[in-house]
Amino acid sequence: MQLVSRYLTFDTTDAIDILNITEAIQQQVTSVGVTQGHVVLFSCHTTTALTVNEAEDRLLVDIKTYLRKLAPPQDRYLHNDLHLRDVPTDEPINAHSHLMAMTLGNSEMVPIVDGKLALGTYQSVMLVDLDGPRQGRTVLIQICGV
Amino acid sequence: MQLVSRYLTFDTTDAIDILNITEAIQQQVTSVGVTQGHVVLFSCHTTTALTVNEAEDRLLVDIKTYLRKLAPPQDRYLHNDLHLRDVPTDEPINAHSHLMAMTLGNSEMVPIVDGKLALGTYQSVMLVDLDGPRQGRTVLIQICGV
Amino acid sequence: MQLVSRYLTFDTTDAIDILNITEAIQQQVTSVGVTQGHVVLFSCHTTTALTVNEAEDRLLVDIKTYLRKLAPPQDRYLHNDLHLRDVPTDEPINAHSHLMAMTLGNSEMVPIVDGKLALGTYQSVMLVDLDGPRQGRTVLIQICGV
Repeated sequence: MQLVSRYLTFDTTDAIDILNITEAIQQQVTSVGVTQGHVVLFSCHTTTALTVNEAEDRLLVDIKTYLRKLAPPQDRYLHNDLHLRDVPTDEPINAHSHLMAMTLGNSEMVPIVDGKLALGTYQSVMLVDLDGPRQGRTVLIQICGV
Repeated sequence: MQLVSRYLTFDTTDAIDILNITEAIQQQVTSVGVTQGHVVLFSCHTTTALTVNEAEDRLLVDIKTYLRKLAPPQDRYLHNDLHLRDVPTDEPINAHSHLMAMTLGNSEMVPIVDGKLALGTYQSVMLVDLDGPRQGRTVLIQICGV
Repeated sequence: MQLVSRYLTFDTTDAIDILNITEAIQQQVTSVGVTQGHVVLFSCHTTTALTVNEAEDRLLVDIKTYLRKLAPPQDRYLHNDLHLRDVPTDEPINAHSHLMAMTLGNSEMVPIVDGKLALGTYQSVMLVDLDGPRQGRTVLIQICGV
């Protein structure tokens, strides 16, 4: 039974950015050589999330609209009162980003069967940045199996 | 340490259908004979989800109402403009189903203790079809442990 | 490869209460001595949830406000018609608690790297009680690895 941890980093380019990271994860699975097992996926930030769904361009816009409806960025949030908190001078206004991230979830599991991520038709693994654009957004993956 | 993968399929009968699949999973755990470990549960579709909660009949109706409030099926979604996408002729109008699925989540973990799914009082494992009714909805389970 | 299961219990003090349980989990990881692996976290109740995010005091208030907006406790829910269900006399009115719990999620995975929970800056593991205050809220953790 192998257990290999790898950090993958990605740059994002929009306030809400959804990256299809399936191929990057599959490459790691292939390089480690696990054929039966699973990948633990862990988002290393409080304003990024992981999800498994369809990476269809128009749906990605719908997802952003949906998240902004659930947690409108312009709403009043206590976390955004930076003058009442002890924070760095570049602290972002991002309470909505935290709420969106919690809604989507911070970790995912994807099985590996016969050396491949066992994704169904249309399924992709996506990293969602809710407080972009940022450089070096990190996902910790653990490839477990034989 | 065993790691056994099994595909379980279920038929659904409603637009949003919530199936209690606890017993089907427990049967697999028992047949594999793992007594200490966990089950990885992975929904194999972009419009199904997995959740662990109470399978009480009236609550199941509340869950459907809640999901329809979060992502109303009749709302305008870009993903539903089928004429602007390259899709099969039987492509469903289901943007809301994707959004609901992402909200509930695509994977779950359930520990196994003494050969039993370590579910608390009232907890059941449920497969939620957000774009039913459909036949052959698939959950990939991996039974890991000793 | 070790796999050690532990039950941790916590008392909560508010209707929605968010506890930072990071240190309690790290102590278990340290005592078991796993240095490379992960922790499976499983909420043992239908009205508690687990999340990984920032345990900043003002954000915790925002999270509560957000959850109450998504699933208002005072809304009409079928699950709350106790006279139509076969329930104990102390059954709580808590349909909203179930819906909130499903939104946040029942299980989480946290990698262990070099003996430490591999949490990013600002990340904490939080137990969220959506139907508090209660005593003995239980999280089942499984520490897996070498």
